[in-house]
Amino acid sequence: MCRWLAYSGSPVLVEELLYGPQNSLIVQSLHSRLGAEETNGDGFGIGWYGEQESPAVFHSIEPAWNDRNLRDLSGHIKAPIVFAHIRASTGSPVQQTNCHPFRHGRWLWMHNGLVRDWTSVKRDLTIAVDPSLYPEIEGTTDSETLFHLALTFGLEDDPPAAVQRTIGLVESVGREHGVEYPFQGTMATTDGESVWAFRYSSEGKSRSLFFSTDVRTLRAMYPEEQLLREMSDEARLVVSEPLGDKLPGAWNEVPESSWGVIQPGQDEIHAFTPDHGAVAARGG
Amino acid sequence: MCRWLAYSGSPVLVEELLYGPQNSLIVQSLHSRLGAEETNGDGFGIGWYGEQESPAVFHSIEPAWNDRNLRDLSGHIKAPIVFAHIRASTGSPVQQTNCHPFRHGRWLWMHNGLVRDWTSVKRDLTIAVDPSLYPEIEGTTDSETLFHLALTFGLEDDPPAAVQRTIGLVESVGREHGVEYPFQGTMATTDGESVWAFRYSSEGKSRSLFFSTDVRTLRAMYPEEQLLREMSDEARLVVSEPLGDKLPGAWNEVPESSWGVIQPGQDEIHAFTPDHGAVAARGG
Amino acid sequence: MCRWLAYSGSPVLVEELLYGPQNSLIVQSLHSRLGAEETNGDGFGIGWYGEQESPAVFHSIEPAWNDRNLRDLSGHIKAPIVFAHIRASTGSPVQQTNCHPFRHGRWLWMHNGLVRDWTSVKRDLTIAVDPSLYPEIEGTTDSETLFHLALTFGLEDDPPAAVQRTIGLVESVGREHGVEYPFQGTMATTDGESVWAFRYSSEGKSRSLFFSTDVRTLRAMYPEEQLLREMSDEARLVVSEPLGDKLPGAWNEVPESSWGVIQPGQDEIHAFTPDHGAVAARGG
Amino acid sequence: MCRWLAYSGSPVLVEELLYGPQNSLIVQSLHSRLGAEETNGDGFGIGWYGEQESPAVFHSIEPAWNDRNLRDLSGHIKAPIVFAHIRASTGSPVQQTNCHPFRHGRWLWMHNGLVRDWTSVKRDLTIAVDPSLYPEIEGTTDSETLFHLALTFGLEDDPPAAVQRTIGLVESVGREHGVEYPFQGTMATTDGESVWAFRYSSEGKSRSLFFSTDVRTLRAMYPEEQLLREMSDEARLVVSEPLGDKLPGAWNEVPESSWGVIQPGQDEIHAFTPDHGAVAARGG
Repeated sequence: MCRWLAYSGSPVLVEELLYGPQNSLIVQSLHSRLGAEETNGDGFGIGWYGEQESPAVFHSIEPAWNDRNLRDLSGHIKAPIVFAHIRASTGSPVQQTNCHPFRHGRWLWMHNGLVRDWTSVKRDLTIAVDPSLYPEIEGTTDSETLFHLALTFGLEDDPPAAVQRTIGLVESVGREHGVEYPFQGTMATTDGESVWAFRYSSEGKSRSLFFSTDVRTLRAMYPEEQLLREMSDEARLVVSEPLGDKLPGAWNEVPESSWGVIQPGQDEIHAFTPDHGAVAARGG
Repeated sequence: MCRWLAYSGSPVLVEELLYGPQNSLIVQSLHSRLGAEETNGDGFGIGWYGEQESPAVFHSIEPAWNDRNLRDLSGHIKAPIVFAHIRASTGSPVQQTNCHPFRHGRWLWMHNGLVRDWTSVKRDLTIAVDPSLYPEIEGTTDSETLFHLALTFGLEDDPPAAVQRTIGLVESVGREHGVEYPFQGTMATTDGESVWAFRYSSEGKSRSLFFSTDVRTLRAMYPEEQLLREMSDEARLVVSEPLGDKLPGAWNEVPESSWGVIQPGQDEIHAFTPDHGAVAARGG
Repeated sequence: MCRWLAYSGSPVLVEELLYGPQNSLIVQSLHSRLGAEETNGDGFGIGWYGEQESPAVFHSIEPAWNDRNLRDLSGHIKAPIVFAHIRASTGSPVQQTNCHPFRHGRWLWMHNGLVRDWTSVKRDLTIAVDPSLYPEIEGTTDSETLFHLALTFGLEDDPPAAVQRTIGLVESVGREHGVEYPFQGTMATTDGESVWAFRYSSEGKSRSLFFSTDVRTLRAMYPEEQLLREMSDEARLVVSEPLGDKLPGAWNEVPESSWGVIQPGQDEIHAFTPDHGAVAARGG
Repeated sequence: MCRWLAYSGSPVLVEELLYGPQNSLIVQSLHSRLGAEETNGDGFGIGWYGEQESPAVFHSIEPAWNDRNLRDLSGHIKAPIVFAHIRASTGSPVQQTNCHPFRHGRWLWMHNGLVRDWTSVKRDLTIAVDPSLYPEIEGTTDSETLFHLALTFGLEDDPPAAVQRTIGLVESVGREHGVEYPFQGTMATTDGESVWAFRYSSEGKSRSLFFSTDVRTLRAMYPEEQLLREMSDEARLVVSEPLGDKLPGAWNEVPESSWGVIQPGQDEIHAFTPDHGAVAARGG
């Protein structure tokens, strides 16, 4: 059920993020340690901010581990914000339009986990997407619909509120269909400046999520690490699972039911509480 | 905007249908003579009835002309009913779930043409699909939604009536959105016994459609043709454009605004009249 | 480094071979138990005898576990001899021309294992291929070159002798290049009537290989097993690893350094001894 | 049989080269005007110089016209030297390793045309490749072997001499095999600083090749053209066919049997004369 990585900081070669670490995302595509599925070979995607306002995305239905285009491109792309995702399908077809990250204008979105009993709730959730956004949905995943629901509920103005309304709706609709624990997972979104990450599940036992320790602290702990000397002070990684255990103290778990933001200035972590008001609005 | 072929008759090697004729479907994938687009290289598909109740389908996003799997498979598949389709996308992504023929239970469906202004009418038409069928929609084409609307309106009981209601709804919804000529195209469907074909457009100038002359007549005209000697008396081909001009008299144009059926017993052609009652039912 | 399966017997639906068993080849594509690599996701292929003299092959660069075409085709193909192979690349590109089984006329070939230090010996081994066969080599694997060497050394007349000369040459050339253990693996080949299987490695610790117990014996042991009642008396499976442990006694290991043949009449197993005479001939 | 484009000048967004012009390379992939084949849909590739010494390449087996990754990447890649190629296979499989441009160290290579009777001369030409370069050959095209022959004959030191020896060898070997006109085509190569282009055929009627008029001259002729104002004075395009006829005087045909170089300082055009000495060296 997927693994992902979000980077924010000084421009970095994508290759260093994807292939460098001991337990890199490419290694995880073959042998994830903490994922629900060990193999994440049902396509992949990367998104980054480059020459235009809108970010670039590169999607492929091949497994990441042997993809030569990914290998080559990642050695020539340098970016200050990078999203990368490897997919383990829970049933949706393996096709580029089902690969993360998804894009809308300046925004990227990716997800690990699932909307439970997706085929039974899909229609109700899709109808709740704003009609002007509806034609943009090109694939069949729960993840892409979550993104368009969040956009419907104001992602571009207040991401945490929009995602809390989205998950509130998912829980309300799921329970109408008799689903005990409708949502499970982690999500990340960015507008090219800040990165928001979310960890939540209806049953209170969410997929793992970690963020990297402050670079200044790490540099003091590991003065000989070349990569740390190159990273800017405010650089951060948010990941589904730690990229290796070579540097004890480098990774902090995001607490259950919380959201965080990496932004210019102070990063923040808050409690995540689904907002079930959306369903009332829908019924109104 | 696609080319297709439907065969019904004595079991025939798919290779002979796809590669044999002078202007075969594979030739048309590179150089269509009558199509709106000359090149049909955005994927292809075949469907046939084999070892199971439900037909087999093989879909690929590669152009048909150089596809080695298609070449090999078609030399080893013999079937009494064969649907084949080559795609020229009008905007939808090139992915297997957008390749024809589409399948539901024992039924196959394929389409050439378009629902005009698809992104603006897509939501209304998709919501009109029966909720129990809705989760089966896996791609993003107008063609697949047409199929699911036809299933919603009783395709399995009365195909001509169901398709006339489908096109009626497409015209009603299109006109609500200010589309002058909402539908254009040809369609074919089969349950593994009979084959129905449709030619219609809102503007009265539909994509071309042809059916083959009665085999007994052809055999009398061309006694030396080996293929004709092998084909059973009731065998028929329905095609977007003639498969060559080597045999004058072999092809008859399906009249504008009509539907036909190839079936055990006498084949039939009737006028096609969209049934706009569906929209009333929808509003009711 | 790949897993494979060869079936010979009464015509069987490929689906039953590939998806039916507890530890089926499709399960092995995600989680091999005995393979050198746990994931075999770098393409796959099947070969079978159908409507023509020459066998059909279907190759794909997608992982087998989620491939919809494989799922569909295997439910509609029935054949008396079936070869199936899932690939874990040891460096060669993931492309259809590197997928097994390979074909030449009526013959199929597949391989699990490797020619060690392939890039350094590739040229010498390729030059040893008969010039008339050379242009048929379309990919870059050691496996395809082994096949063309075996054809060069008389595979079509005496398969065991040809393969023993092939491996003899591989060992001679390898040692000229300072490779201690030049060959490792298992191979299978068929002309559509008999199936030959080989297990050998220069170091005497070869990849695993198993064959199924005589069907009459199995039927007596498990009278309630439906599949066994359907299989003909002489049906056999040869596999890289057992297809489950539900039926104790069903699988026999092929001994180290041996070859066997499944044929009309009595099956046989013999010692496999590389024939190093080929290199002398080459030098002559 | 392929179309290509080479750009050298001030860093330019690849999108402007590939999609901007009236008869752009993407338009040519569907409807080439001057090519031997009208459709060039058997894969494509781009190469450019970015963050590393060695250039990046991106290869795909999809037709270029609907490829979303190409669309996206080209909008985010800016480079001073860009090679782009669309392929129409003359028989070799459609696979990434057969896509141009090919790469070796800092060098890129692409080709339009063919070595005639390739399967009969392939072995002799491949054996002539330096054994240390031989394992780098990953595909099966004549084009990739031409590149490795040129590298064998000193491409990195003196490109025109090396290519003249390569074509000399192709002609000698071809004639040994009874081929009347062994070579036909155009080629381009670059080390990231200069770009060399070649037009030659054994029959003296080569595929078309054009280079753009000096930017200062063009700017004087078309002062209102925005693109020209952005291009640096020394910028040049070399193309298989003109990118539109909107700007009369913008394109000059490369003469029959000649080679040219775009380099810092003065560009040059010279006569191209195959050097048949290589075959003597081979026999020696």
